[in-house]
Amino acid sequence: MKALVYQGPGKKQWMDVPMPQLANPQDVIVRVDTTTICGTDLHILKGDVPAVQIGRILGHEGVGTISEIGTGVRDFAVGDRVIVSCIKSCGHCVNCRSGLYSHCLGAEGASGIGWVFGHLIDGTQAEYVRVPYADNSLHKLPDGVTDVQAVMLSDILPTGFEIGVLAGQVKPGDVVAVVGAGPVGLAAMMTAGLCGAATVVAIDLDSGRLEQARSFGATDTVTSGTVDWKKQVLALTDGAGVDVAIEAVGLPATFSMAVDIVRPGGHVANVGVHGKAVELHLEELWIRNITISMGLVNANTTPMLLKLVASHKIAAERFATHFFTFEQMQEAYETFSNAATTKALKVVISRVG
Amino acid sequence: MKALVYQGPGKKQWMDVPMPQLANPQDVIVRVDTTTICGTDLHILKGDVPAVQIGRILGHEGVGTISEIGTGVRDFAVGDRVIVSCIKSCGHCVNCRSGLYSHCLGAEGASGIGWVFGHLIDGTQAEYVRVPYADNSLHKLPDGVTDVQAVMLSDILPTGFEIGVLAGQVKPGDVVAVVGAGPVGLAAMMTAGLCGAATVVAIDLDSGRLEQARSFGATDTVTSGTVDWKKQVLALTDGAGVDVAIEAVGLPATFSMAVDIVRPGGHVANVGVHGKAVELHLEELWIRNITISMGLVNANTTPMLLKLVASHKIAAERFATHFFTFEQMQEAYETFSNAATTKALKVVISRVG
Amino acid sequence: MKALVYQGPGKKQWMDVPMPQLANPQDVIVRVDTTTICGTDLHILKGDVPAVQIGRILGHEGVGTISEIGTGVRDFAVGDRVIVSCIKSCGHCVNCRSGLYSHCLGAEGASGIGWVFGHLIDGTQAEYVRVPYADNSLHKLPDGVTDVQAVMLSDILPTGFEIGVLAGQVKPGDVVAVVGAGPVGLAAMMTAGLCGAATVVAIDLDSGRLEQARSFGATDTVTSGTVDWKKQVLALTDGAGVDVAIEAVGLPATFSMAVDIVRPGGHVANVGVHGKAVELHLEELWIRNITISMGLVNANTTPMLLKLVASHKIAAERFATHFFTFEQMQEAYETFSNAATTKALKVVISRVG
Amino acid sequence: MKALVYQGPGKKQWMDVPMPQLANPQDVIVRVDTTTICGTDLHILKGDVPAVQIGRILGHEGVGTISEIGTGVRDFAVGDRVIVSCIKSCGHCVNCRSGLYSHCLGAEGASGIGWVFGHLIDGTQAEYVRVPYADNSLHKLPDGVTDVQAVMLSDILPTGFEIGVLAGQVKPGDVVAVVGAGPVGLAAMMTAGLCGAATVVAIDLDSGRLEQARSFGATDTVTSGTVDWKKQVLALTDGAGVDVAIEAVGLPATFSMAVDIVRPGGHVANVGVHGKAVELHLEELWIRNITISMGLVNANTTPMLLKLVASHKIAAERFATHFFTFEQMQEAYETFSNAATTKALKVVISRVG
Repeated sequence: MKALVYQGPGKKQWMDVPMPQLANPQDVIVRVDTTTICGTDLHILKGDVPAVQIGRILGHEGVGTISEIGTGVRDFAVGDRVIVSCIKSCGHCVNCRSGLYSHCLGAEGASGIGWVFGHLIDGTQAEYVRVPYADNSLHKLPDGVTDVQAVMLSDILPTGFEIGVLAGQVKPGDVVAVVGAGPVGLAAMMTAGLCGAATVVAIDLDSGRLEQARSFGATDTVTSGTVDWKKQVLALTDGAGVDVAIEAVGLPATFSMAVDIVRPGGHVANVGVHGKAVELHLEELWIRNITISMGLVNANTTPMLLKLVASHKIAAERFATHFFTFEQMQEAYETFSNAATTKALKVVISRVG
Repeated sequence: MKALVYQGPGKKQWMDVPMPQLANPQDVIVRVDTTTICGTDLHILKGDVPAVQIGRILGHEGVGTISEIGTGVRDFAVGDRVIVSCIKSCGHCVNCRSGLYSHCLGAEGASGIGWVFGHLIDGTQAEYVRVPYADNSLHKLPDGVTDVQAVMLSDILPTGFEIGVLAGQVKPGDVVAVVGAGPVGLAAMMTAGLCGAATVVAIDLDSGRLEQARSFGATDTVTSGTVDWKKQVLALTDGAGVDVAIEAVGLPATFSMAVDIVRPGGHVANVGVHGKAVELHLEELWIRNITISMGLVNANTTPMLLKLVASHKIAAERFATHFFTFEQMQEAYETFSNAATTKALKVVISRVG
Repeated sequence: MKALVYQGPGKKQWMDVPMPQLANPQDVIVRVDTTTICGTDLHILKGDVPAVQIGRILGHEGVGTISEIGTGVRDFAVGDRVIVSCIKSCGHCVNCRSGLYSHCLGAEGASGIGWVFGHLIDGTQAEYVRVPYADNSLHKLPDGVTDVQAVMLSDILPTGFEIGVLAGQVKPGDVVAVVGAGPVGLAAMMTAGLCGAATVVAIDLDSGRLEQARSFGATDTVTSGTVDWKKQVLALTDGAGVDVAIEAVGLPATFSMAVDIVRPGGHVANVGVHGKAVELHLEELWIRNITISMGLVNANTTPMLLKLVASHKIAAERFATHFFTFEQMQEAYETFSNAATTKALKVVISRVG
Repeated sequence: MKALVYQGPGKKQWMDVPMPQLANPQDVIVRVDTTTICGTDLHILKGDVPAVQIGRILGHEGVGTISEIGTGVRDFAVGDRVIVSCIKSCGHCVNCRSGLYSHCLGAEGASGIGWVFGHLIDGTQAEYVRVPYADNSLHKLPDGVTDVQAVMLSDILPTGFEIGVLAGQVKPGDVVAVVGAGPVGLAAMMTAGLCGAATVVAIDLDSGRLEQARSFGATDTVTSGTVDWKKQVLALTDGAGVDVAIEAVGLPATFSMAVDIVRPGGHVANVGVHGKAVELHLEELWIRNITISMGLVNANTTPMLLKLVASHKIAAERFATHFFTFEQMQEAYETFSNAATTKALKVVISRVG
């Protein structure tokens, strides 16, 4: 089969590799029908994630069809169409039992992190992928949900919702600001209403993205480059600050912005993947009764979000801006990594036929 | 009357001042019977809190007897013995209605912060003090609770419990580490069992303090100066880290220690008053699903803690290490500010007769 | 002035009474501009609420203008337009401090129940009303909110939301069934989305009401008279039952319906005012891990709901079906008490000019 | 092997039966070293649980040693000493994912109820037992925990804690009343302190049991036969009632007692297994803002409770009053079913050698 293989910093190749094999009774093999690219894949390609070894097949998002199944799998059968969740979890370690699937201790190669695809084991940017702990890691696709919609449930929608909206403790009537209107920020905006957000403020440097944000649920927009951006945000509250600020970029400057606009008693939810330390001004913040949260998605809301997609309450397809075949994998990466010019949100990569 | 008056950085004086007067219908005047000194008072004296103006009477902790009462006060009468809470709150602004009394918007001079005594209005290190919003800010002293016990409920016990234990989301069976075995850290240790902490690890540089910590509820102690202090802490867990780390010092180094020992999915509760920014290593932490909390006490657990003191379930008197009269105010400050040598925890300052 | 006075079971009179006077420093006098009638008023008129004495002015909902103000009131001024909440609360008793305003211990005549208007003290179906604890019980009306919208915030909207949706622990993605499509049931349907309800099933005997329910947020309707009503409800879930069942009628039969359709682990929220005991089949339910909640509104979400009305996110005016003047009070009662034929939801009664 | 087999209402026999066999890859076979009898077993023997068929091996509590293991089991090995939890759960159905293991949809024969041993499949009152979903249903026994202690973790301790204390939402400082001082009631008393209960009131008809209750954590006792029992309970609160009332008997009268003593805003947690419907006086209760919970244990706190037993913070052995061998099974039942005269709490039944 063919797969996208990591060849060291800056290098990747769509090449022939051996077919994956069942390794444990809980495994299945999934024929990948649709995959996509995540910002984290770009980080890996820069060499920022040393745990990824040369030869690793990339990708942690995907939708496909089960082609082979282990003897210990109960809930799935060959031929089932499934979403491959970015998080693998055993379902019975101490972390899984408390819903902290993101830090599953049981997943092979995991070192206590549930994100293993395209990281510690081979991933989904391939014609076939082996999925461990299938009963706990796959979601059956109901009729009427397209691959394009479904692939947004592998990572982006649950991440925006769980790590942005839920960890940020958004509650009915809240003013929620999202710093960064890229795919994950938009996913947070799109799902903030599920917890009752009354005002959703998109903040970004790019006015095009801000315009786009409105169709993902933003009720107000603020251009972050402007001198009075903070004043504009506060004007949308009672002056005291927003109830919840969601950081969806991953830079020290954007993290500071999120902290600066939150009201006493409010919450900062960090969703961005950071490469550097940030300064936390505890000399001012110690008295402000805020909380700061961060983390990897647990994907325990995926079944719920899938229902909302199936019933047309979440328009997941809206993230898909560009479409490619597997053979155009390289081109898909080009488009996605130049989002500023291509205006790409998520690129959809599908097998032909 | 006499009071301790701030005279600018490094300067204070026990001197004659005018008697306080009722200013609003909700006010009472309390004759102070017992007061104490807080680490924050030392910060003020260093000039670290610019909002405190020269001429301000210091102190935000106290127990006394009501000597005069406004026409709008319902629940108290002249002669009542009361605890003066460090937090004033109106009870009906948007923050008070959500239990965020620490950021009461209604308190006079407050600028949205409920801590006003010895800060924005005259405080309790005096023979008499005016208490605004008396119905909402005082707690009647039941028979059998001594002044010495009661004064620990003005600030220290609710702060350790609310900002350490509750904000840290301690739950049954947890391993809780407290960095810093000073008065507030000890208050957190003493109340961690109320939320079911099974293991309470005291961490401090001073082995004398660590020994003392055991009588405040620490089940284990770790000397923070040792090379393998972190390894010692982790050995008390399943290796993954503590469930909750409470910072009770207020320095960048101790904050880092707290962050370093918390397990994925755990909580860091900052109680310390900081004077400098800290580095937050988001490049490592973004994936760890921790939360960080911080803040000023709301004092909404004070009535509950008072009941536990009254029923001898919390031995509040254990904090009191040194005793002084009002006329020895200066000496009391000396003893408290040299805690390393005097071994002082809380100094108790009382009127004579 | 004129007011509607209770004259014993079955009897009421719109008659001359003395003007109310300020009794305490925290009181204000409000000139009532708009009031309405609640199902509870009908109960009182039947003699079901013995605490209501002959001579009592009825009504606990109203919008008006402050005409006089006590010396202890801080946040309001003569001329302010205000919503009079059905719940009075002191803001500082042990129940108020924990947000249980409905059981305020401080309110005069309260016997520990925050609902006093038209019950234990004179109410709002009058030209003027005395409001105790004004700072804690009134809500300033922002520009652009009409009296008709605002009067729905005195009781009905917070009751449906707090006692139905919040007490029922509705969470994102839930299937919520509301038994009874009268005003309070509709208020629950209208606000269920604030907690993320994905499916809202209205259940009622009256198909006209069910049709109406759709404009209040119901996504599905089931006629309760049909043989297979329960089967129809379960068909809207995964077969196991609804996540939350809200009882909004107050009869043993409707309570049983709510209990019968809830899934294991789900919640039954009783909003209805009951006149009789119900049978609870614990011999079947003990194993089902459900919770049952009930209660009087605390009105602590009123400010939040008011913001949503002001920003046109809740169309509160939709409840108003019939309009009367104060002089038509008797007629308004006729219309409201014959809702089955008049199709009345809420009747709006306003002063002229 | 030998096992206790249900032979229809009133009849049971310790008899030869075939050895259990592995049926699925996730199964293990456990050699039972210690088992015990639950009140539910007595209900089954009365014929109250029609789902139990003639020929079924009874018992759902046990401690043993793994003798055989399926190919799909990851976390256990032959020879491991384990606690057999009374709840089986697959770990990945929709209920398991939300922590509602008690209503696991995946367990074979389960019909959506996680309690299957001695009910829908063969149980633990036998020399060997087949355990499905072993990875999710067994708990490894640490050194230093005895069989006698461990068998209390199969059902009784997690049930008292989860369904009594946690479902009752016990919080720091609460007054908790437990109606019924039998084994499960005592388990609730013993664990109420984990959530901060300050006062634990044991209520029972039997003064001997009340005396015993003190060694399980009761701070106060009330004899329920006395005329003023309710007055005595209220005298232990501020007069308004207890914060949490736990029903641990299973009769209409005791359920009513629990409801009668709870304060407005408080919680009634039903732990008792009921055989009849109860009357719920909603005509008085609708206004009281209480919640009523009920259910089957999820056993997700078992690992935490096991740690507390291992560290001697919970003296689980205190429940064991009488000791028998497997061959004395019949005698053990006699002793347990005549607890009023034998004073039995839990009878411990162990293999010899």
